[in-house]
Amino acid sequence: MKKHLIALGVTALAGAAAAQSNVSVYGRLDLSVGSEKNQLTNASKSVVSSGLLTTSRLGFRGTEDLGGGLKAIFQIETTLDPDAPGTNSQSGAARATTLGDRTAIVGLTGGFGTVKLGRTDTSFDDIRDLAVSSSLWDSEFTPTKNVYGTGRSDYSSRASNQVRYESPSFAGFTVGLSYAFDEEAVNADPTKNGVKVTALNARYKVGALDLGVATQKQETYLNGNPEIKYTALSGAYNFGVTRLSAGYQQAKDATNTKDNEYSIGVNVPLDKFNISVGYASSKAKNAAGATTAKGSGFAVGATYSLSKRTSLYAGWRDTSRKNAVTGVKSADERLYAAGIRHDF
Amino acid sequence: MKKHLIALGVTALAGAAAAQSNVSVYGRLDLSVGSEKNQLTNASKSVVSSGLLTTSRLGFRGTEDLGGGLKAIFQIETTLDPDAPGTNSQSGAARATTLGDRTAIVGLTGGFGTVKLGRTDTSFDDIRDLAVSSSLWDSEFTPTKNVYGTGRSDYSSRASNQVRYESPSFAGFTVGLSYAFDEEAVNADPTKNGVKVTALNARYKVGALDLGVATQKQETYLNGNPEIKYTALSGAYNFGVTRLSAGYQQAKDATNTKDNEYSIGVNVPLDKFNISVGYASSKAKNAAGATTAKGSGFAVGATYSLSKRTSLYAGWRDTSRKNAVTGVKSADERLYAAGIRHDF
Amino acid sequence: MKKHLIALGVTALAGAAAAQSNVSVYGRLDLSVGSEKNQLTNASKSVVSSGLLTTSRLGFRGTEDLGGGLKAIFQIETTLDPDAPGTNSQSGAARATTLGDRTAIVGLTGGFGTVKLGRTDTSFDDIRDLAVSSSLWDSEFTPTKNVYGTGRSDYSSRASNQVRYESPSFAGFTVGLSYAFDEEAVNADPTKNGVKVTALNARYKVGALDLGVATQKQETYLNGNPEIKYTALSGAYNFGVTRLSAGYQQAKDATNTKDNEYSIGVNVPLDKFNISVGYASSKAKNAAGATTAKGSGFAVGATYSLSKRTSLYAGWRDTSRKNAVTGVKSADERLYAAGIRHDF
Repeated sequence: MKKHLIALGVTALAGAAAAQSNVSVYGRLDLSVGSEKNQLTNASKSVVSSGLLTTSRLGFRGTEDLGGGLKAIFQIETTLDPDAPGTNSQSGAARATTLGDRTAIVGLTGGFGTVKLGRTDTSFDDIRDLAVSSSLWDSEFTPTKNVYGTGRSDYSSRASNQVRYESPSFAGFTVGLSYAFDEEAVNADPTKNGVKVTALNARYKVGALDLGVATQKQETYLNGNPEIKYTALSGAYNFGVTRLSAGYQQAKDATNTKDNEYSIGVNVPLDKFNISVGYASSKAKNAAGATTAKGSGFAVGATYSLSKRTSLYAGWRDTSRKNAVTGVKSADERLYAAGIRHDF
Repeated sequence: MKKHLIALGVTALAGAAAAQSNVSVYGRLDLSVGSEKNQLTNASKSVVSSGLLTTSRLGFRGTEDLGGGLKAIFQIETTLDPDAPGTNSQSGAARATTLGDRTAIVGLTGGFGTVKLGRTDTSFDDIRDLAVSSSLWDSEFTPTKNVYGTGRSDYSSRASNQVRYESPSFAGFTVGLSYAFDEEAVNADPTKNGVKVTALNARYKVGALDLGVATQKQETYLNGNPEIKYTALSGAYNFGVTRLSAGYQQAKDATNTKDNEYSIGVNVPLDKFNISVGYASSKAKNAAGATTAKGSGFAVGATYSLSKRTSLYAGWRDTSRKNAVTGVKSADERLYAAGIRHDF
Repeated sequence: MKKHLIALGVTALAGAAAAQSNVSVYGRLDLSVGSEKNQLTNASKSVVSSGLLTTSRLGFRGTEDLGGGLKAIFQIETTLDPDAPGTNSQSGAARATTLGDRTAIVGLTGGFGTVKLGRTDTSFDDIRDLAVSSSLWDSEFTPTKNVYGTGRSDYSSRASNQVRYESPSFAGFTVGLSYAFDEEAVNADPTKNGVKVTALNARYKVGALDLGVATQKQETYLNGNPEIKYTALSGAYNFGVTRLSAGYQQAKDATNTKDNEYSIGVNVPLDKFNISVGYASSKAKNAAGATTAKGSGFAVGATYSLSKRTSLYAGWRDTSRKNAVTGVKSADERLYAAGIRHDF
């Protein structure tokens, strides 16, 4: 009878475990209290913000073992706005949710690598993030905010209608390729905002070293903005007591207007603290090679770990941008806040 | 071998339990068939309604033990419209969902009390609900519907961009404080609908007694409606064979226009039945103290419990409002319905 | 001690199982790469599509045993657009999600049958699907696409504000009835798009045979389209080595304009493959009985099963429609694609 009970227990358990493995519900809430100041107008306001460290989100994901090393994978990840900002901040109405706006993919993974179909990050974005991501730099607190991508260089970090391939690791070396169809291409209506996005990356990650290079091409049928090419070179080295990272990124459009963008970061873990300092700068150049605009940003902050899943944090970011000829500032923003991040 | 199996079973089980404890998916579906009648125009219609007892919803929540009595908590709760009402009632299109429109918070709870950040009920709303909530009075069936809040007194039951504190219980006594930032405050554009909401409550709950008092201030930068103050006093006593509840609420704006609102309720559990009767009345007064409008509402109904999670219900509500000088009715509505409520 | 451990294991397990049984998270992702061609304009485009076999979705459902054979049931099922099509195909914005747009019901099931309240398929839709559903015919790959429902016959496959009854099976024989309230009925505003939908079906399903007949009436208060009646007769027989299905459907409006629609399908399972071929045709007739338009469609495809939950597929569909008098084509579309479908 004992054996029977045990067998029952284990069988039922296996059933429960199998049922659970189909889908895992997960997410993150990152909320803070802080202050935003526009230093051009001197206007400042106190705010409850979501996503200063990393975007708040809710997700569903899973893996199915198909045998022979092959697995089916899926993920649906959706942005959360737990602070509900905007013009309707105190009414019931707020931003409408689109399930899967961050990630909505199905794919296969095995010895050949991973193939994904749907909406997800481009292969370029992975390399860009390698340099600008740390405990403080992934979202609103990044020193690249309003510094990168303020010229002609607003790149697609994620794309819909995408096919993406990630190679297996060959002694630490991987390559990735993503292609997003422009499904408006047959339509001559210039108000349709179709863009074709092709990206390629190569990455070398062994021990403490993480190096990557990537390129992305965005083609559109809209007048005046036919093609932008992006190049990124990123690297990080973890010395244990500190992690250094640096990145270079260039955006170039069809008229040869360029944005050159640089970032550097330091990450210092101290017991339950993790202190981050980051600096970013950018120069926009016209077709003749003359600098037309400059931007720079600085950020510093720290997280304090309450558990693997929960941290308190505080941070400060100051970014500005000016006309390189007249010196007149076009943007000058300051942000500081303290908050909590919880993963589930 | 037996021991091994048992150990395996228990270990795997612990793993499964741990995985589950991160997030719990829950919700409620409350659907009914009934009739709505506008007694001013004599227009009536048969309807399938959602949320007559309580709003239909889908939620995700969890608690993480951080040690030392400290816990991280989160909750994301979203309104469901399973009947899909409105102008597109038979087409695929319907109201867009905003994940977390009811509640979207992360916080910490411990010996010091509970702190929450995000979108949730105000501290005032808790006390107001103490009087008007019972098995029939929480949503569309409440006798306060169209009676409360029809003058200048439309209060924010929940607010975005909020910091909220709830004290621990001192021998049954608790206090609560909520503050919602007006994130439009720096913006002089009067079309921006920013509101600052500050609320405070005190509650005494021991045995059968539940008493509360609360105040809420809503400040806005819109012309003509600069500030409204709310006061609520609510109480309930559970005699076992019956629960009595009563509430008083006042709304007062900057021009000294007042709404005085009263409600009383009786709740009688009879085996699997729970019978509710409620009455609410309101008087709007101008700055000179003269009554300008009167409203009153009556509701009666019962739930029948099929299980802890599932009930059948039926209810009837009649509410009206009139000009106190001319006696002309401005609203006169009747609603009756029978439905099912299921929690998951 | 062993017994104790076992008891603990089984008890905890029962707890876990009970918690799980409240709600089950499930879904489907169906994504493909293919080509759409409008053969009238010769415009073609390559696309990543969602839902060529069956719509991508995310759902929450559960069953509660109420004792005595009675159960409470609920289901909330929402469309996913993992490819995020449309005008904003590469930006963050995309179609807003409505939770429960596919199904949002609560109900009771027992010896008397099943009663559901909310938004779900009509009783008519079940029978229509019996003929046109197979591994290839349920969604965009169906040969009925642009062939059925292109005259006056656009029927409601699902309806909001619905009460639906499904009988138990009497030796394979079942009946079903659904009624959707027109909640705009009291409102004379012709811009309100209210429709009352009444449907009835009868089905006989024994062994390899599946036969059904259904009718649906759609009443609206909009001018010029007061009532449409639908009739469907569907059947399928599974010979084991092949499954044959056929269906007839008629739509008739108040002016006696008719659409007569036919489909036939063959399904051949071959080891892990399942090959489907389908053909559909339609004729629109005016009140005098003369044929005004003709349409036809052909589809062929196959699925390859990687597991019970995951399949690869490829398919091809060609549909066209023409004026029966002039012979001028009004639509001529071709679609082919290969993809993956994963259930979770």
